[in-house]
Amino acid sequence: MNEHPISRFPVPDLDEVPDDVRELMLSVQEKAGFIPNVFLALAHRPDEFRAFFAYHNALMEREGGLTKADREMIVVATSGDNGCQYCVVAHGAILRIRARNKLVSDQVAINHHKADITERQRAMLDFALKVSKNSREINDADYEKLYAFGFTDDDIWDIGAITGLFGFSNRLANFASIRPNDEFYTMGR
Amino acid sequence: MNEHPISRFPVPDLDEVPDDVRELMLSVQEKAGFIPNVFLALAHRPDEFRAFFAYHNALMEREGGLTKADREMIVVATSGDNGCQYCVVAHGAILRIRARNKLVSDQVAINHHKADITERQRAMLDFALKVSKNSREINDADYEKLYAFGFTDDDIWDIGAITGLFGFSNRLANFASIRPNDEFYTMGR
Amino acid sequence: MNEHPISRFPVPDLDEVPDDVRELMLSVQEKAGFIPNVFLALAHRPDEFRAFFAYHNALMEREGGLTKADREMIVVATSGDNGCQYCVVAHGAILRIRARNKLVSDQVAINHHKADITERQRAMLDFALKVSKNSREINDADYEKLYAFGFTDDDIWDIGAITGLFGFSNRLANFASIRPNDEFYTMGR
Amino acid sequence: MNEHPISRFPVPDLDEVPDDVRELMLSVQEKAGFIPNVFLALAHRPDEFRAFFAYHNALMEREGGLTKADREMIVVATSGDNGCQYCVVAHGAILRIRARNKLVSDQVAINHHKADITERQRAMLDFALKVSKNSREINDADYEKLYAFGFTDDDIWDIGAITGLFGFSNRLANFASIRPNDEFYTMGR
Amino acid sequence: MNEHPISRFPVPDLDEVPDDVRELMLSVQEKAGFIPNVFLALAHRPDEFRAFFAYHNALMEREGGLTKADREMIVVATSGDNGCQYCVVAHGAILRIRARNKLVSDQVAINHHKADITERQRAMLDFALKVSKNSREINDADYEKLYAFGFTDDDIWDIGAITGLFGFSNRLANFASIRPNDEFYTMGR
Amino acid sequence: MNEHPISRFPVPDLDEVPDDVRELMLSVQEKAGFIPNVFLALAHRPDEFRAFFAYHNALMEREGGLTKADREMIVVATSGDNGCQYCVVAHGAILRIRARNKLVSDQVAINHHKADITERQRAMLDFALKVSKNSREINDADYEKLYAFGFTDDDIWDIGAITGLFGFSNRLANFASIRPNDEFYTMGR
Repeated sequence: MNEHPISRFPVPDLDEVPDDVRELMLSVQEKAGFIPNVFLALAHRPDEFRAFFAYHNALMEREGGLTKADREMIVVATSGDNGCQYCVVAHGAILRIRARNKLVSDQVAINHHKADITERQRAMLDFALKVSKNSREINDADYEKLYAFGFTDDDIWDIGAITGLFGFSNRLANFASIRPNDEFYTMGR
Repeated sequence: MNEHPISRFPVPDLDEVPDDVRELMLSVQEKAGFIPNVFLALAHRPDEFRAFFAYHNALMEREGGLTKADREMIVVATSGDNGCQYCVVAHGAILRIRARNKLVSDQVAINHHKADITERQRAMLDFALKVSKNSREINDADYEKLYAFGFTDDDIWDIGAITGLFGFSNRLANFASIRPNDEFYTMGR
Repeated sequence: MNEHPISRFPVPDLDEVPDDVRELMLSVQEKAGFIPNVFLALAHRPDEFRAFFAYHNALMEREGGLTKADREMIVVATSGDNGCQYCVVAHGAILRIRARNKLVSDQVAINHHKADITERQRAMLDFALKVSKNSREINDADYEKLYAFGFTDDDIWDIGAITGLFGFSNRLANFASIRPNDEFYTMGR
Repeated sequence: MNEHPISRFPVPDLDEVPDDVRELMLSVQEKAGFIPNVFLALAHRPDEFRAFFAYHNALMEREGGLTKADREMIVVATSGDNGCQYCVVAHGAILRIRARNKLVSDQVAINHHKADITERQRAMLDFALKVSKNSREINDADYEKLYAFGFTDDDIWDIGAITGLFGFSNRLANFASIRPNDEFYTMGR
Repeated sequence: MNEHPISRFPVPDLDEVPDDVRELMLSVQEKAGFIPNVFLALAHRPDEFRAFFAYHNALMEREGGLTKADREMIVVATSGDNGCQYCVVAHGAILRIRARNKLVSDQVAINHHKADITERQRAMLDFALKVSKNSREINDADYEKLYAFGFTDDDIWDIGAITGLFGFSNRLANFASIRPNDEFYTMGR
Repeated sequence: MNEHPISRFPVPDLDEVPDDVRELMLSVQEKAGFIPNVFLALAHRPDEFRAFFAYHNALMEREGGLTKADREMIVVATSGDNGCQYCVVAHGAILRIRARNKLVSDQVAINHHKADITERQRAMLDFALKVSKNSREINDADYEKLYAFGFTDDDIWDIGAITGLFGFSNRLANFASIRPNDEFYTMGR
């Protein structure tokens, strides 16, 4: 059992939160077997909770040229670079499952240049990391590199927007010290 | 008249977008006299459009220890650091109006250390810039500095979350080359 | 009326400064309608005052392949990167006037990659920013990129030297907290 | 089964290497159940192989104020910062075992500031990361912080030297693309 | 004899330059036994030549709380950080002579934290390097540290302005590839 | 005579160290005329002393595509970048002797881009500095650049491993404040 707090900020009980917030939590719990701490950590701000998960789902469950594993891989690589424990551990678990690959999450979190991924995925992560670290210099040449691998403009929006949303969530998890559930560490290994 | 594109991505006509999206645009147009380009640039993705503005409003129009000018000031300072033209110009205009101060936006965008702001605001921006640039090292001492100026935990969440949301929007505006409306450059001067 | 000090250092009265220093100030005042604060802030060191403006004029009023607007644009872009409020605000005003363009100064100060400038100007600013941030790595390839746009060696000296002189003046304005005159904020808008 | 090469450089067969090199490999294999790839990747240079493991053992198996888990923790934290997949994965496994803690390796590799470690360990890692990233500025004040937690000069030598040796091994593993054995990913979880 | 060019830019013959420029060169030659290459490299731009040396003399030969050795030490430390071969080698020679110390120039150029200098000089160089690398964050606390060692505001102006002028000259020497005279390498050793 | 300590850590007398350690010291003293301080500074840890010099000799005295001067040049360039006074001064002396060139050490330590070296050596140092500063991004393209100059894989291992070993020794010398012998400053000039 773990006695570390899951956030610096208030974590409401399930019966204190609005119905739609609670329902979303319970539905995730049913699927995953536990409530990921980010739900608990955002629940003290229901409007932000709703906006975050609406944005999350719009980007992560969208159809398009990126697989679900690709989307998670972007999260893991950029969160590693931002030093975000919550996102690396939680999305690392999801990536292992989505990619049916036990090694890729640790590889991508530490150094995507050395990971067992395709050249197309490497180009995708190069773009994501440039958006994360130096978006001011993104230019036509960066787009051309992605077009060469068959990415469409719509895919590129997804890569950039996922990077941006999780860059936000990395900062949130870091300043609020949101702690990943212990369950995530071993999921999919 | 301006012939530069407002985004690398598709900009739908007003009659192509869902009703709620169009209504939000028209209501802003009524208040501001024009539709800020970020509304047009996000409209090709209605779900993301809705999530972004829901999040925006939850953070920027919230009551609390931060004034509306304080909130805009966070946006301008961190967007300057991220090299985001759209956010510096558009939110610089709003900050001039909210703060009733013609100089503060340019000052804060270039170097908040030299701006005509209070020590309390300077501490707020120091925290915001640390969240923006190095969130992994945010620690108790950073919180203590803000408590000393009377900021509550709730205020600190606001500072950090506004920084995070606009860090996302800075990256989005940079990779999509979203262009600020010409009107913003002179508003409130 | 503005009550903020214009410098951490002594600001002499006009009648305390040597005749040639005063005359230069008065001649600028006649043209601009006010004395830019940098003249007042340097006046306590007449020899440095003379050397600075001699150097300034040698580089900024020189004939050659760079227009006066180009020269000011270099100042604004590199000063933005150095976080120098005085130079961005004051030279931003002059650039707006020289370029007859109300938007370009803010654009270039925030992120020259996204500014409404020619490809030739973008190459010029890329070189200037490399000299500013990483001069040790300037090499033949950097010169070739400028030759391709028709810049001569003499023009390149101008780009590099203007960058260097204002890098000096940015550091001076930053450590001495030299404040831009309020008038500059709206000139040329 | 894994078909990725374990190094860019030649990997000799066991019967091609000098006897003492082979014996060391076989003794590790007996203990661990497999030969860690770093042994195979260094074996083409027997003198360097011997020097590396001599140095390794001198620092990692030494008695003193640092536990074996502390020593591994330094390796994992600094290797994470250097983006070294081999060292994070292999020494992460050893750290889990030495510390009898399933979570600490991932935590420390991503962001030691947020790990479940003691304040003493945090000070130790702060020093290690400063040696790794900015050794030129190590000064008396850094030593004082460690003395306050009871570290002796001898312990501090260990912290700095382990950081240095693995900074070397991180660079080696990165330029030679040395791949961690699959077994390490799940050891101790 | 040395066949490497002393600059990428034109180096005029002595009889091609204006009288005052030539006279300054000859007077230096008389004192030093040779003409330092920076005089030759700037001579193709007589107005800039005059402004540079006027500025140089105003700062380097000024009376005040800084000795001449202190002034040269600032040049060597900041030029080392900027990777400027000309200034490190030439001013390193002058510093050895002014300080009557054969070791200090190499020490300060590589890492002033480890040099055989006084605590007062170390504080002076800390300030200089902050002005050089991060002038935007210079603040009251930086001034207080210098006041504590007896530096006056006038001295601080000197430290900052010398840093700024040579930061300019470092960039000039780097983009123009100005080569130090061979004589400087051994002077004062 | 010099009264500065040569290390923060204990420096044993020659008669206190194990025989093989003393013999190595005396043999170096016979050749060089003095005992380089790094031998004295490592002697309090005989096992590490032995491992360090075994590694050193394996890399620095190896036959292959790199001359001994090339190997020293790598040490000087990377140690300059790491701000390591001991290694720049001591190996700068050795490089002057090995390369029979009085200028090259200072040039390479300050800025290898401007040194009087061959294009092949410049490529070698570019690789070394990338391994030193950013090994995680070393990739095929970096190898190709070296192959183009005739470097073999074996040579590249040497370049990378020398960089790594001295990156270790730079950190050691920096955290332990190991001081170069005065003799090195003028050797080979």
